[in-house]
Amino acid sequence: MKIMIRDSIDGNSNTFFSIGIDIGGTNTDIGLVSHEGILNARHNLKTTQYFDAQLFVNDIVSVICKLMSENNIEKITGIGIGAPCGNFYEGTIDDAKNLNFRGKTPLKKMIETQLHVPIVVTNDANAAVYGEMIYGGAKGMKDVVMFTLGTGVGGGIIIDGKLLYGSDGFAGELGHSILVPGSNRTCTCGSKGCLEMYASIRGVVQTCVELLEQFPENELAKIPRELLSPKIIADAADKGNAVAIETYRKTGEWLGIALANAVVFSSPEAIFLAGGIAKAGEILLKPTRESFAKHKLFIYKNDIPVLMSRLNENEAAILGAASLVF
Amino acid sequence: MKIMIRDSIDGNSNTFFSIGIDIGGTNTDIGLVSHEGILNARHNLKTTQYFDAQLFVNDIVSVICKLMSENNIEKITGIGIGAPCGNFYEGTIDDAKNLNFRGKTPLKKMIETQLHVPIVVTNDANAAVYGEMIYGGAKGMKDVVMFTLGTGVGGGIIIDGKLLYGSDGFAGELGHSILVPGSNRTCTCGSKGCLEMYASIRGVVQTCVELLEQFPENELAKIPRELLSPKIIADAADKGNAVAIETYRKTGEWLGIALANAVVFSSPEAIFLAGGIAKAGEILLKPTRESFAKHKLFIYKNDIPVLMSRLNENEAAILGAASLVF
Repeated sequence: MKIMIRDSIDGNSNTFFSIGIDIGGTNTDIGLVSHEGILNARHNLKTTQYFDAQLFVNDIVSVICKLMSENNIEKITGIGIGAPCGNFYEGTIDDAKNLNFRGKTPLKKMIETQLHVPIVVTNDANAAVYGEMIYGGAKGMKDVVMFTLGTGVGGGIIIDGKLLYGSDGFAGELGHSILVPGSNRTCTCGSKGCLEMYASIRGVVQTCVELLEQFPENELAKIPRELLSPKIIADAADKGNAVAIETYRKTGEWLGIALANAVVFSSPEAIFLAGGIAKAGEILLKPTRESFAKHKLFIYKNDIPVLMSRLNENEAAILGAASLVF
Repeated sequence: MKIMIRDSIDGNSNTFFSIGIDIGGTNTDIGLVSHEGILNARHNLKTTQYFDAQLFVNDIVSVICKLMSENNIEKITGIGIGAPCGNFYEGTIDDAKNLNFRGKTPLKKMIETQLHVPIVVTNDANAAVYGEMIYGGAKGMKDVVMFTLGTGVGGGIIIDGKLLYGSDGFAGELGHSILVPGSNRTCTCGSKGCLEMYASIRGVVQTCVELLEQFPENELAKIPRELLSPKIIADAADKGNAVAIETYRKTGEWLGIALANAVVFSSPEAIFLAGGIAKAGEILLKPTRESFAKHKLFIYKNDIPVLMSRLNENEAAILGAASLVF
């Protein structure tokens, strides 16, 4: 398949369109986005099905073509992609532990051979925080940090209105800052005590399991470990289950320290939380804010609000990725 | 005293001069710096003697005038000041815990009423890392992190060739990132487990004292605690004293984690260490590098060297502060 797509505006209006792609460990969401930040249409691929990067790229290209033809779009400005271990400088995915195709995948180059438009690859959390700044709750802000709390914990940092990439494109891997030295929780990255081991799906479940060892009479102990999920724990917390509440209190306590540590680095105007774990809402947000207030260095006199992402899940990354090419 | 100093070049040559000031808790160093980065002359004030900011400013102005007249300089480009809790945006020192005059000191405004030249106030560690980038071992680099290990632990972060200030001017307070949650070491900032409590003068001595409680027969146990210093411990380590060696090994282990955590934030090309504690040399540097290598996230494929500052102590901050006005 070889398609020429020029970098131009849609013939029927003054609206520009681009494609935003959010590659996650489970799903890949592909959306058609207008320059006003409206997600016109989206399709979905099951990332887990792909053990071969070329087949994955072929299907991504097919979906893009389908989205364009379904919406009568002849031209797009470009394609923005947020991916785990997305390398902005090289346009590659570098050995992402939660994808089935390993090594260095030259994503930008592979898509370029089929679609001749500008392509930007970035980290998924970078795409999310960029989307939040352009279209979400961080609109008008110039210094922002976002933590995405899901299967893993990602970080995206905006400095003076620009995404922070650093010397090799991988700045902002906040999930792998070591929060608890000497911890017995070994991360997928090989280190122990990473933030990811305390504020991801696995981290929250682990905290709950450790508490249940102390309180085996608790209702949640009846649920097999492999079925325990942050959602089940959050629902139990809402009903007053003490272990569930304590699970989120501890998670918030740890997360608040990570937030305070982010502030001494980049002194943001606000910190945003996104991802499945953040959906727990106040049961997580309250202890997080309390811990953050307790641990935030006195020198920062301004209020630094801890806010939930204002964009729907996945939308932030699709919109952010798409807006990187506008 | 009211002196007009124009923003111009020295009448006798094509050399520009500025004044660099490094305000430390103990000493304030004031230097005359040429635009080639040569420290032509310097004088010193005892910071501890000043309980009144106005008297401090008056004496700084006197020293500047003295430096200029001694060196036949009629005009300076400006004055750059590195100070603890130096607020870049407001030109103030904000409630520095290790100065005898408290509250918010409007340093820039106070000097401006006497000397009519551009004045820049920044954090002392920011000045040091900037000096390192312009004149020292980080020359040619664009993404650098520096840890200054002394009475306190400071941090300076360079992103894409520019100092990172963040939303309120206080980015890079790396000494107050919480390294050991639940630690019993309470920092001057009020938090527990800050990096400063492990890698400053006080931190190193505390580590040694805790080890001596386990090994009361060690030679160092004969020295009264108030006389123990990082220098004495480093000298003992060089002679093979096991507790002294273990003190620096533990310090390096902690510091290496802090370095790895800095990398996931800003992905620098190199990390620099400066300050009195860094003078211990290999006895600290070796375990620091080992711990850093162990804890650095796998995704960073490039070598990120851990280097000692190439500038003499204090010179980096004077040169860096001075170069901020060029």
